[in-house]
Amino acid sequence: MLQPIITLVTDFGQKDHYVGVMKGVILGINRSARLVDICHEIPAQDVRAAAYVLFASYRHFPKDTIHCAVVDPGVGSERKALILKTDRHLFVGPDNGIFSMICNQEKEIKVYSIHTSKDLFSEISSTFHGRDIFAPVSASLSTGRACSELGKPVSKFVSINTLRPDTEGSVMKGAIIHVDRFGNLITNICRRDFDGFLGRERFEIAAGDRSLADIVKTYSDAPAGKIVALFGSAGHLEISAVMGSASGLLHLGPGDRVLVHRL
Amino acid sequence: MLQPIITLVTDFGQKDHYVGVMKGVILGINRSARLVDICHEIPAQDVRAAAYVLFASYRHFPKDTIHCAVVDPGVGSERKALILKTDRHLFVGPDNGIFSMICNQEKEIKVYSIHTSKDLFSEISSTFHGRDIFAPVSASLSTGRACSELGKPVSKFVSINTLRPDTEGSVMKGAIIHVDRFGNLITNICRRDFDGFLGRERFEIAAGDRSLADIVKTYSDAPAGKIVALFGSAGHLEISAVMGSASGLLHLGPGDRVLVHRL
Amino acid sequence: MLQPIITLVTDFGQKDHYVGVMKGVILGINRSARLVDICHEIPAQDVRAAAYVLFASYRHFPKDTIHCAVVDPGVGSERKALILKTDRHLFVGPDNGIFSMICNQEKEIKVYSIHTSKDLFSEISSTFHGRDIFAPVSASLSTGRACSELGKPVSKFVSINTLRPDTEGSVMKGAIIHVDRFGNLITNICRRDFDGFLGRERFEIAAGDRSLADIVKTYSDAPAGKIVALFGSAGHLEISAVMGSASGLLHLGPGDRVLVHRL
Repeated sequence: MLQPIITLVTDFGQKDHYVGVMKGVILGINRSARLVDICHEIPAQDVRAAAYVLFASYRHFPKDTIHCAVVDPGVGSERKALILKTDRHLFVGPDNGIFSMICNQEKEIKVYSIHTSKDLFSEISSTFHGRDIFAPVSASLSTGRACSELGKPVSKFVSINTLRPDTEGSVMKGAIIHVDRFGNLITNICRRDFDGFLGRERFEIAAGDRSLADIVKTYSDAPAGKIVALFGSAGHLEISAVMGSASGLLHLGPGDRVLVHRL
Repeated sequence: MLQPIITLVTDFGQKDHYVGVMKGVILGINRSARLVDICHEIPAQDVRAAAYVLFASYRHFPKDTIHCAVVDPGVGSERKALILKTDRHLFVGPDNGIFSMICNQEKEIKVYSIHTSKDLFSEISSTFHGRDIFAPVSASLSTGRACSELGKPVSKFVSINTLRPDTEGSVMKGAIIHVDRFGNLITNICRRDFDGFLGRERFEIAAGDRSLADIVKTYSDAPAGKIVALFGSAGHLEISAVMGSASGLLHLGPGDRVLVHRL
Repeated sequence: MLQPIITLVTDFGQKDHYVGVMKGVILGINRSARLVDICHEIPAQDVRAAAYVLFASYRHFPKDTIHCAVVDPGVGSERKALILKTDRHLFVGPDNGIFSMICNQEKEIKVYSIHTSKDLFSEISSTFHGRDIFAPVSASLSTGRACSELGKPVSKFVSINTLRPDTEGSVMKGAIIHVDRFGNLITNICRRDFDGFLGRERFEIAAGDRSLADIVKTYSDAPAGKIVALFGSAGHLEISAVMGSASGLLHLGPGDRVLVHRL
């Protein structure tokens, strides 16, 4: 039988025991689970960055992969814990918008609010639901337990609106949602939104004090140090510096505006 | 048959080949071993932090897990190499106190000093025992070899006393043993010690220039920026800043004092 | 049957989705592949450091391991994509010299230029060949596909000459190729080159403003803070500071000269 795959996306970093503990809990419930680290260096409590990294990764994993995502500034409060089920994947994590981009992308999604009753969990701390809820639920799903057994269907859950751009007249107002290791500024503007907004019109992209009049195909299409706009590997508009860091050169980061003017 | 689990805790970081080499050596001896990274970002040569991370993680792993811990400032000197055996787990690492908190926690422990004779190891370098001793011993244990075959029982081994608090009259003198990614200051005071010392008396906790008169249940029990004391997910007293870094705000780090005054 | 092992060496870091995407792609093609992270924190676009880390790791892995190495400043340009086959291992990565030290070490190597035709790959982006070429080729090799099916034999490929030292009269001119986490300065001078150059003559090693007249056996052979020369765990000459960072103390880094004078 195929070993079930459980991926992990967290902001726990790699200098502490948090990730190791989650792995131990999962293997304690299902020793045959295959653990795949996607990313543990999400900036602390940055739900938007986690939403993007999960969105950019999940579709590449095989059918029935379980994605466990824990960036959870509201741990210990009343926020719900969720399971999402699409036709190919399962997702487990807090109800704080971390799955917003999955929801924008997928058509058929069932959402469950995880039961946190005593018969499912021995003890739930108020500081580490990665260990006490999300790891055991992911592991239980990997053993074949049904979503409906672990939670009850819900229709309301948190969505982060700023993960999609606004449009006002001839301006599309986007924002930077993630800065990658190379200093590339990844925006919330996907190609479909960009093309739908512009049609065949010309455009100008404004990022910090720069104006960009075209989209290049790859980083090496321009001389070193030049600021360029391109659609990155996950299909979102990126502002990049050839052989350098756009974030450093433009002093821009998460939340900052990137505007597309239709001319 | 179940694949044996070998976890890794090191201070080797992730920019070098050291971790990869250990994994290669283990898989070369036992291709069916399952490698689980707990943590490779222990601050360089910080045996105390490694002792804490191992302590906070190990109990969550299934029976027969082998924990290989390599933070080893004394590599190349005369320090012994150890195997520890409890009723559920095996531990492999240098004799420098890295297992002190395991020893405080577990009742039945057998300790073995690893034979470093020529018939077990082809060659032992003087700089990388992770590769030359700890990885091959962990892999050999995972194939079913007995501890008594790989080492000889010993009764003396290094323990770090400062991993438990001192008590003087009405003051319990604790210390910070680990600062986590979020800037939480984790002390060597566990709940059992705290409760045993205080009984039903009131208390005041002193950390840097702050005094704290109560223990909160979770980070979100206080307004952002406030310094609070709580028992963290591994059961130790932590000083935290709500939505911030206690380490940054209080200028405290590993080794600094945290006092509990009985009033 | 044994699960095939695929190792990963990249400069993608761990705060983004890039590594997770590659893992998803590999598991989508071969769910039984075992993924082993060697290193993702190669300094961005530092092909030399990647060449060293791969060289220092690969030989410890079992026969038939596939090593996928992606540090790829030329992505999107005309540079070739390679498969290397030795008698024990396979290597997959860009043609930019990343395999130079493997080629210096191994005797029998066959090199293939990967076909990037439409029938092998659905779509190849211009920014992320880790996902679009190197991951799927590694996964395909792990399912048993032949090198000759995925590429055509080539005799010319890029080699980085500065990964070996030059000799001028009585001076061997080496260079630092990697600085490890502990600040050790690892040079391109291996023991064989060193011994062959010196024979039985005395020597002086010059690194920055220091002169070193002997080779120590291990870090603990000298007092704390002292700068020493030794042959590191992968067999290369290293300049180290006992209990400290040679890189910090000598202000030296990748590319800087280390000279061996024959006296």
